[in-house]
Amino acid sequence: MRIFEEMESEVRGYIRSFPAVFDVARGSEIFDEHDNRYIDFFAGAGSLNYGHNNPAIKEALIEYLQHDGIVHGLDKATLAKQAFLTKLRDTIFAPRNMEYKVQFTGPTGTNSVETALKLARMVKGRSNIIAFTNAYHGLSMGSLAVTGNSFYRDESYGVRANSAFIPFDGYLGSGFDSMAYLRKLLTDQSSGVDLPAAIIVETVQGEGGIHVARDEWLQELESICREFDILLIIDDIQMGNGRTGTFFSFERAGIMPDMVTVSKSIGTGLPMSLLLMRPELDQWKPGEHTGTFRGNNLAFVAATKALEYWDTPDFAEGIAYKGGLFEKGLKAILEKHPEACGELRGVGMVWGIDFSDAGFASSISEEAFSRNMIIETAGANGQVLKFLPALTIDEALIEEGLKIIDDSIAAVLKVRQGLREGVLV
Amino acid sequence: MRIFEEMESEVRGYIRSFPAVFDVARGSEIFDEHDNRYIDFFAGAGSLNYGHNNPAIKEALIEYLQHDGIVHGLDKATLAKQAFLTKLRDTIFAPRNMEYKVQFTGPTGTNSVETALKLARMVKGRSNIIAFTNAYHGLSMGSLAVTGNSFYRDESYGVRANSAFIPFDGYLGSGFDSMAYLRKLLTDQSSGVDLPAAIIVETVQGEGGIHVARDEWLQELESICREFDILLIIDDIQMGNGRTGTFFSFERAGIMPDMVTVSKSIGTGLPMSLLLMRPELDQWKPGEHTGTFRGNNLAFVAATKALEYWDTPDFAEGIAYKGGLFEKGLKAILEKHPEACGELRGVGMVWGIDFSDAGFASSISEEAFSRNMIIETAGANGQVLKFLPALTIDEALIEEGLKIIDDSIAAVLKVRQGLREGVLV
Amino acid sequence: MRIFEEMESEVRGYIRSFPAVFDVARGSEIFDEHDNRYIDFFAGAGSLNYGHNNPAIKEALIEYLQHDGIVHGLDKATLAKQAFLTKLRDTIFAPRNMEYKVQFTGPTGTNSVETALKLARMVKGRSNIIAFTNAYHGLSMGSLAVTGNSFYRDESYGVRANSAFIPFDGYLGSGFDSMAYLRKLLTDQSSGVDLPAAIIVETVQGEGGIHVARDEWLQELESICREFDILLIIDDIQMGNGRTGTFFSFERAGIMPDMVTVSKSIGTGLPMSLLLMRPELDQWKPGEHTGTFRGNNLAFVAATKALEYWDTPDFAEGIAYKGGLFEKGLKAILEKHPEACGELRGVGMVWGIDFSDAGFASSISEEAFSRNMIIETAGANGQVLKFLPALTIDEALIEEGLKIIDDSIAAVLKVRQGLREGVLV
Amino acid sequence: MRIFEEMESEVRGYIRSFPAVFDVARGSEIFDEHDNRYIDFFAGAGSLNYGHNNPAIKEALIEYLQHDGIVHGLDKATLAKQAFLTKLRDTIFAPRNMEYKVQFTGPTGTNSVETALKLARMVKGRSNIIAFTNAYHGLSMGSLAVTGNSFYRDESYGVRANSAFIPFDGYLGSGFDSMAYLRKLLTDQSSGVDLPAAIIVETVQGEGGIHVARDEWLQELESICREFDILLIIDDIQMGNGRTGTFFSFERAGIMPDMVTVSKSIGTGLPMSLLLMRPELDQWKPGEHTGTFRGNNLAFVAATKALEYWDTPDFAEGIAYKGGLFEKGLKAILEKHPEACGELRGVGMVWGIDFSDAGFASSISEEAFSRNMIIETAGANGQVLKFLPALTIDEALIEEGLKIIDDSIAAVLKVRQGLREGVLV
Repeated sequence: MRIFEEMESEVRGYIRSFPAVFDVARGSEIFDEHDNRYIDFFAGAGSLNYGHNNPAIKEALIEYLQHDGIVHGLDKATLAKQAFLTKLRDTIFAPRNMEYKVQFTGPTGTNSVETALKLARMVKGRSNIIAFTNAYHGLSMGSLAVTGNSFYRDESYGVRANSAFIPFDGYLGSGFDSMAYLRKLLTDQSSGVDLPAAIIVETVQGEGGIHVARDEWLQELESICREFDILLIIDDIQMGNGRTGTFFSFERAGIMPDMVTVSKSIGTGLPMSLLLMRPELDQWKPGEHTGTFRGNNLAFVAATKALEYWDTPDFAEGIAYKGGLFEKGLKAILEKHPEACGELRGVGMVWGIDFSDAGFASSISEEAFSRNMIIETAGANGQVLKFLPALTIDEALIEEGLKIIDDSIAAVLKVRQGLREGVLV
Repeated sequence: MRIFEEMESEVRGYIRSFPAVFDVARGSEIFDEHDNRYIDFFAGAGSLNYGHNNPAIKEALIEYLQHDGIVHGLDKATLAKQAFLTKLRDTIFAPRNMEYKVQFTGPTGTNSVETALKLARMVKGRSNIIAFTNAYHGLSMGSLAVTGNSFYRDESYGVRANSAFIPFDGYLGSGFDSMAYLRKLLTDQSSGVDLPAAIIVETVQGEGGIHVARDEWLQELESICREFDILLIIDDIQMGNGRTGTFFSFERAGIMPDMVTVSKSIGTGLPMSLLLMRPELDQWKPGEHTGTFRGNNLAFVAATKALEYWDTPDFAEGIAYKGGLFEKGLKAILEKHPEACGELRGVGMVWGIDFSDAGFASSISEEAFSRNMIIETAGANGQVLKFLPALTIDEALIEEGLKIIDDSIAAVLKVRQGLREGVLV
Repeated sequence: MRIFEEMESEVRGYIRSFPAVFDVARGSEIFDEHDNRYIDFFAGAGSLNYGHNNPAIKEALIEYLQHDGIVHGLDKATLAKQAFLTKLRDTIFAPRNMEYKVQFTGPTGTNSVETALKLARMVKGRSNIIAFTNAYHGLSMGSLAVTGNSFYRDESYGVRANSAFIPFDGYLGSGFDSMAYLRKLLTDQSSGVDLPAAIIVETVQGEGGIHVARDEWLQELESICREFDILLIIDDIQMGNGRTGTFFSFERAGIMPDMVTVSKSIGTGLPMSLLLMRPELDQWKPGEHTGTFRGNNLAFVAATKALEYWDTPDFAEGIAYKGGLFEKGLKAILEKHPEACGELRGVGMVWGIDFSDAGFASSISEEAFSRNMIIETAGANGQVLKFLPALTIDEALIEEGLKIIDDSIAAVLKVRQGLREGVLV
Repeated sequence: MRIFEEMESEVRGYIRSFPAVFDVARGSEIFDEHDNRYIDFFAGAGSLNYGHNNPAIKEALIEYLQHDGIVHGLDKATLAKQAFLTKLRDTIFAPRNMEYKVQFTGPTGTNSVETALKLARMVKGRSNIIAFTNAYHGLSMGSLAVTGNSFYRDESYGVRANSAFIPFDGYLGSGFDSMAYLRKLLTDQSSGVDLPAAIIVETVQGEGGIHVARDEWLQELESICREFDILLIIDDIQMGNGRTGTFFSFERAGIMPDMVTVSKSIGTGLPMSLLLMRPELDQWKPGEHTGTFRGNNLAFVAATKALEYWDTPDFAEGIAYKGGLFEKGLKAILEKHPEACGELRGVGMVWGIDFSDAGFASSISEEAFSRNMIIETAGANGQVLKFLPALTIDEALIEEGLKIIDDSIAAVLKVRQGLREGVLV
């Protein structure tokens, strides 16, 4: 590990939570340099929905490389890109009656968010954007302005600029109707909140701590956007690609956003990011927004292969089934350990246990790592244990993993109990 | 091509300049779907300094995939990352007496620039940044504020914020000393230009039109930064990785910037981006700046392999030699066609012919494409024909390529001559 | 009136509501060029709490001018300023145990607000400011950012910048505790609302439509400011100088703000503005914030004289008594005209009748003007009829004025009734 | 003086330079509480061009007060305002073929500048404004963004925003053509300087250190504005009202700005401020920009009287004559004291001696005060001794004043000489 401490910036994070040097990875298993095996309940923060080194995808990549397929293509046309666009249209857009235009942005999520915000502002000629408490949309300057957590900001970064935050569904408890509040702010010209170009929202807040917006709330949000001529941007970077049970996370609410940011698992772990937009919003001039790696052809090859998972309903059914295993398993664990005071939230295959207590959640993550599991925390202070397994994980691994969670909670509770009783454990 | 017109955003650019569907690429040659061969003088806008599908790199990638090496690692430690850091230290930093810390940022250039600007502002507690006329640093909101070309901006994007532009070397002709001007602005507290956290500069402006800063100018810039306690950020995204003859473009001037942004060819065409910083500037808290794809292990494998080119002086000598071929060849062409009124500028293996006339430059690019060459324009209005070949190109291809340029200029001049004479060509 | 139409900007406002050319004014009566007499229930938008041409003040002014007392003094020491400071200390500060330092700012309210915001940001080193829905703090760029009404903003003004709006007391109905909401936003580091340097608030929103904050709400606001190390700025420009019954409007809540902006009636109708600040906040360097007219000595002379009203409790008692006359009189009027659906709000001698309907309120203002009364509307859309008489008004004029209001409402209701019944009135 | 130290903010400035308590003032003489007489070469920083307590003006004011003329009128029509507008049209606009519309803004200079910047941005739909090195336009947030001196700024004020600074005439020496530079920046879309809504300029920089723009430079600036569709705003707050020899300072260059900010002496020492604009720019909606004291009727009465000075050419001729006395007198003094190394700059009745050395200039100001003269310094560091006498000053006082300057320079030089020689003086 010495080279990392010597050379890598203090900003490094996960290397501290998971202090091992990793080598090989297959599906939902990772192996470190000493061949220790870990179960992966983190899946690259949602970038590995199809698992590590998915055999079909890996094979396609090797074949493409052996063929000397063009790898870096800027935004030139390539066979790989052609195949991806065709597959995206036929497998994803057509059955959902979607007519989105596709923009290839810089290859990581924040690049897509930056692009969406610029386009929304340009099209509407308004600079304000509304975002939500606990939102996470990235850390470049445009995206940071709509990201909630002040941990990521510094006075010297300069202006926050042109964003306003509204309570997310449930933020002030179930008695508060944040959509009624939003409507009031927009109706009242003296509210201090100027008419925004767009509202950007995650249907499930991942980094924010697994907060699931209700369908009715999302529908009302869409209605308000239509009524006030505001663009609705769904940031589907972490929750898209099947994570919540459908390809796009907003399908469950039956809404159709004006723009969708797509990244993480779309490239199956290779850097790739898209912005989808209604055709009438596509008002860019050629080259008005560019980026060197918007044409990562290896990612196109991988993405095209991965979309085959969506050819039949089987994959979505599998997510529902395995999501149910998580829900039941975690409920049972929480019932077994009522002292942990955990609140379970989630949908599809994204689940979080909110322990209120950041120290407790991170102790469990640590304990689990000592038992060869990789699992992360989320939320404003990291108080939520976050389950983000590959969608391709099999039942045996789920069972094995949940057992580790159960044991880890028990172990941490025992230590805490001991500390309270003044016993040295 | 239909699928691109149907589905891809109007923002697409190069697909319009180079209307073919590409398939295979090797070294400096690209082949379209009908197996037409093109010579590549563009090299992925400087991302392919080591050529397309460089055999040694490609082999390493295939081997890594076959081994099921971890591909997506966030910022966890991996053997691939370990190897890259070690190689970077031993081959690049050590012989140059560099002690930079390395931050892996989002994988495209603008992510690195955003990171540098945030860190500089945080460390110095000042929000102002000085940049230069014709600068290009990317299009996300933070980077856009220091990019010169207003083509990329829109009033509705919101505030420009916290940047000031100074004439680049030569911008006002050779009689104007822009460093003396900068010193005056900084010395005079009433100049309107507040003391900046940092000055960001390209040693050769690529997108801006191949403007080469003189060594003395860069040295004076470094002196001013030291004198006024300003951080010096070299944006080496396009000009680093050997493009100007040395690994870092600023080596020729004997300066040592406080931060360096590195991207494009560092990953040999795979998305990867770094920020180098003096150790004392590494004041990040863990996780304070993150990004999903800051751990693109395929790119680490490729980068590690590519850095072997720098084990001996041979590679740099080759750049110097081949750069000389370009310089001589292009001079000869311009002498042959004095009517073209081209001004040659460049260093190492980046060259530009400024025709003043944007229409003329793009006609040559078009004509060259019809003769199976890929070459782009640069500059505020695209008035500069830009030569950015792979550094691994061989002499025969250089000769063949320059012949195409010669013929293309002749052809365009003939058409123009014909138009002037009222003759239909 | 022709010269005004010919030469004055379209921005002119009150001249349209009250289309007469005025000449003479005494107490609460104004006379136009044709000697028509009007009762003034507007009092210069709260600048004439001591009435027009108050005889004692007028005499002092004439005497000062005849003495050739220095009129324009920048911030040089003058006898007039000395007398004012002494009177302010002895009559206002001392009995209230206040130790404020006094800054003479540019002579209109927004200059004082700008000064407060700059100082708060400088002292705390934070740029965010929290303001409230319906807030009105002025229209220069700094103040405009904390003013709620979007009527005053334009996209092209540039950035809104560094302000967040919170619901004022009662904004979402009595069931919503906006202080609990504020506390939640400040406690939760992921709320999107960064810790502000200051919170700026009016205890009664005047322009915003006569919304009276409850004492408990103001007390809780002060507590939150103390708890989170936030400065509390009371904008007392319209509500200070006795308007609500005490010299400062916040006295009723028993709170002690960190800064107070004072203007309007402090100079008895002559331009004058102050910023009061706790001594430890006075971190200005000499001359760091200046302005040409911060030393309007005529206003000092007038202000010194006016403060004599506060020598005994009589004046405050008179406000209470006459405020009671307004409250009772207006209640009776509303009971008489239930079809008007007016909601009465107010305290001291500031009252508003919210008719919900902007057209209705302005019809009454118009009707009243035709009956020789000057009264204005307020609120986001002007839906509130606003009573802001001089505090020196006598009972007979109050009675006469309320009669005009009664008649005006009756007349407007009759027209409306007629319109509904299809009768031409 | 104790009450000032006890109660007034540390920001107080002139009270420190001129530590006396003043009482009476007539013309160019001020008397302190002990009846000491001072000659005033400062004239309220240019607010007292017609002298202190000008008898005709004073008489008009007293008469108006005795008549109970309306004093505070918001923007209602009054006889006083009518008379002012009529006089302004007949005496100033008509002979100069000006058709400006008049906006009464908040009563101090910065309010007028804020108004001009807002209107320019709104009309042009662009947020950028160009200003000049050493510019001073005020200290509220909008004006501060176009004021050069960083002494007035703090990082925490938030964003600088939407302004760019260009070298004023002569800033880089006579060899540098800053208008050619400006043209280049505007022509080159990649310069980093976006097309501004307006350029704001002082024809003579007062606070900036008495820098006189040449006529040709101003003419070229106007041409550039016309050519690029940019509004030209002349900030005539300090240099208007006859200071430079004509009513408007820009008359000498024969240009016609799109907007003019007028304040300081227009109200003869009473707070008053105007924005003049070409009729087609008057795109305000009623009430879109307001302010409590935009109707200071006492100032209108004073201003109307003062404008009588411009009924005949005599006043302008007097300025020219007395300005010549200053120029000759100061030249003679500088010739007599070559060791002072003073550079004389000025026009009309605004003159500055630049000693390069801030300490030297302030020593002379101090020395002069001890000899009963009030004179201030200007420039980035206060290195310029600034002569800004009332335009109504008589020859005897000029002579007496210049003698004090001569003596003061001699005295300061003698001390310095003594210090250099190690002699205790």
